[in-house]
Amino acid sequence: MNAFATYLDRELPKIEDCLRRHVAGLNPYVRPTADHVLKAGGKRLRPLLTILTARALGYADEDIYPLACSLELLHSATLLHDDILDGAALRRGKPAAHTLFGTTHTILAGDVLLALANTMVASYGKPVLTACLSDAIMSTVSGEIQEIAHIRDVALSMSDYLDIITGKTACLIQSACKAGALLAEADPPLVQAAAGFGMNLGVAFQLVDDALDYTSPKEVSGKPKGSDIREGKLTLPLILHIQNLSQEAREVFTKAFKENTLTEEALESALSAVASGGYADKTRDMAVSYLDKARECLGAFPAAEETGLLHTALEGMARRDK
Amino acid sequence: MNAFATYLDRELPKIEDCLRRHVAGLNPYVRPTADHVLKAGGKRLRPLLTILTARALGYADEDIYPLACSLELLHSATLLHDDILDGAALRRGKPAAHTLFGTTHTILAGDVLLALANTMVASYGKPVLTACLSDAIMSTVSGEIQEIAHIRDVALSMSDYLDIITGKTACLIQSACKAGALLAEADPPLVQAAAGFGMNLGVAFQLVDDALDYTSPKEVSGKPKGSDIREGKLTLPLILHIQNLSQEAREVFTKAFKENTLTEEALESALSAVASGGYADKTRDMAVSYLDKARECLGAFPAAEETGLLHTALEGMARRDK
Repeated sequence: MNAFATYLDRELPKIEDCLRRHVAGLNPYVRPTADHVLKAGGKRLRPLLTILTARALGYADEDIYPLACSLELLHSATLLHDDILDGAALRRGKPAAHTLFGTTHTILAGDVLLALANTMVASYGKPVLTACLSDAIMSTVSGEIQEIAHIRDVALSMSDYLDIITGKTACLIQSACKAGALLAEADPPLVQAAAGFGMNLGVAFQLVDDALDYTSPKEVSGKPKGSDIREGKLTLPLILHIQNLSQEAREVFTKAFKENTLTEEALESALSAVASGGYADKTRDMAVSYLDKARECLGAFPAAEETGLLHTALEGMARRDK
Repeated sequence: MNAFATYLDRELPKIEDCLRRHVAGLNPYVRPTADHVLKAGGKRLRPLLTILTARALGYADEDIYPLACSLELLHSATLLHDDILDGAALRRGKPAAHTLFGTTHTILAGDVLLALANTMVASYGKPVLTACLSDAIMSTVSGEIQEIAHIRDVALSMSDYLDIITGKTACLIQSACKAGALLAEADPPLVQAAAGFGMNLGVAFQLVDDALDYTSPKEVSGKPKGSDIREGKLTLPLILHIQNLSQEAREVFTKAFKENTLTEEALESALSAVASGGYADKTRDMAVSYLDKARECLGAFPAAEETGLLHTALEGMARRDK
């Protein structure tokens, strides 16, 4: 077993236990909804990053788990609300919470998980941690708002797209790493390195996600191929495809995309064109450039087992297929 | 002009200005929804209580407004989500946000107002304030969950009812007062007195609200008389009415209430019975007993203009008709 798997074997049960204990205290009315989203097979990337960063920077206390888990709870809260907004039927291959529990339970479960995340971080009594979490909440919600505001917006620029994925995904991953560094009371340049690592890793994570949406079969990803294009989300593979269409084809495609009148045929043809044009690969290439920047940030970290594991996580990100 | 009106004339514009400045920074996609709920004629009770408490306890700085307004933003966030859950058509006599802007905008506007409240409190860098806000969020959401879990629950006890109104309303009003005392760095017994004042005032506030739902004409309250009973909410006037029905009448009424099959006639007859039985008045009497406890808590406050105004607010609460 490699070092990363050994580490996961030791840490994941502690993360799961902490999540379970906190969710167990919630009102029975929303607990099943909260349980559902938390058990839907998340990778616990955010808590792991908090733990690895804090440990790499010398923090040894066992009181790290609520902080680490607060970021998973915040992430889960946003998933619950997002799935309602997107009208998504599936989440990680399982029915989205709102299709099982209804909108009321799902809105409230999202609200209470957010409240729980807040309470858990507040209990540390450290203003820097609170500020880190509240920045994460604001960025994530703002990113989600920006994404929805640009649904079916064929004029979305590359820079708008990067703003959206930074807000909705990367800022929370940044906060996961930064929170670990802050808990470890690392020196400001190291806190900045941890934040930079998380930010770049987070952008890469979402770029890979957006590439996988065009390439990963449903059996692997848990959601139908091309779900972004179906939901009217313009992500990098599609932006590149549209840029490379002839003017005439572009006008036809963008009109139908904008008006949500794409036929199944046109949709399949766009998926093929993204594949044959290599636009998903180009998206992964861009992810690699962000991973390079993330690796550079890690250069500031001290030599430690966990610094090595952060490198391993980073390498795994480029290869991930789900 | 009386002293309270003079004080309001001076403070309300500062509260409105602070709210306006913070909401102006939100994404244009959700700003109109946030503006709508904030402009729907709220009394700004929570910010006023924070300000009056802090000033009564000797705090003179002008930096109080973001803290005070954070509680109004949290309150507005919960109103946005609640109106979706309740399926309410009106809020303070105006169309509820979700009927104008749709569920997506309304969920996101609620999320972003909550995020904004968090960010504003975090900026003080004081763990006690953060803890106060996160407790308020958790209690308010939990109270709302409990209320919804007991919709059409004819077995709701008086103690469950008090738990619900404490959670959904009183805890936030408690936090508004407590936050003011904490900002003023008051001694622990005074912080406790401020919290006790807010808690009792908050329970009284909701009791009066629940009485008004049965007595206040639509032109005054902005919502149709008996909207709670229509939404399946069992509040004190109805609990008292049900307790006083003959066994047979109780069985008929509770069955129809539970199954949401009350005819318009049965509903009108229940409204009349609540009026003739004096159950709304009894609810107000109970509010008065909480106001007495709130007054007792104020006894610990130093003599100050604002202590007098808190007494005025308290007296006004017993008389309010909207």
